[in-house]
Amino acid sequence: MPRTSQKPHRIAFGDRVRALRTDRGLSQEKLAELSGLHRTYVSSVERGERNIALDNIHELADALDVPVTELFEIRP
Amino acid sequence: MPRTSQKPHRIAFGDRVRALRTDRGLSQEKLAELSGLHRTYVSSVERGERNIALDNIHELADALDVPVTELFEIRP
Repeated sequence: MPRTSQKPHRIAFGDRVRALRTDRGLSQEKLAELSGLHRTYVSSVERGERNIALDNIHELADALDVPVTELFEIRP
Repeated sequence: MPRTSQKPHRIAFGDRVRALRTDRGLSQEKLAELSGLHRTYVSSVERGERNIALDNIHELADALDVPVTELFEIRP
């Protein structure tokens, strides 16, 4: 799915998860393990392809050890 | 669905939406109209019964005219 056809806020969320994950030196596999989500799901979230829901948003925040608000912070 | 059996973060999210809505003197009908969501859906979100997804989270934030982070701020 080309990024241009995706919703900007899904892309922004995915980019934010990737930035937080890589900042912590975590692989997608490790973040998937920590969050209890499937690696391919984490990968598709990071690509901005998922309309991720509240429960999984909280699982990712917990796994990244950040408050949920941090996942929605727009960083340049 | 008794509140006790619901996920705390869904209840917190719903309580936050209700607080922001009532602060703005909006009815559930008006918030539903502004967000393009169904009134019964807004009502169930506020009762903490919905695993609301990213797209609808953004619709509600836009309708309430707040950044998405505001919907996840924990207020005493």
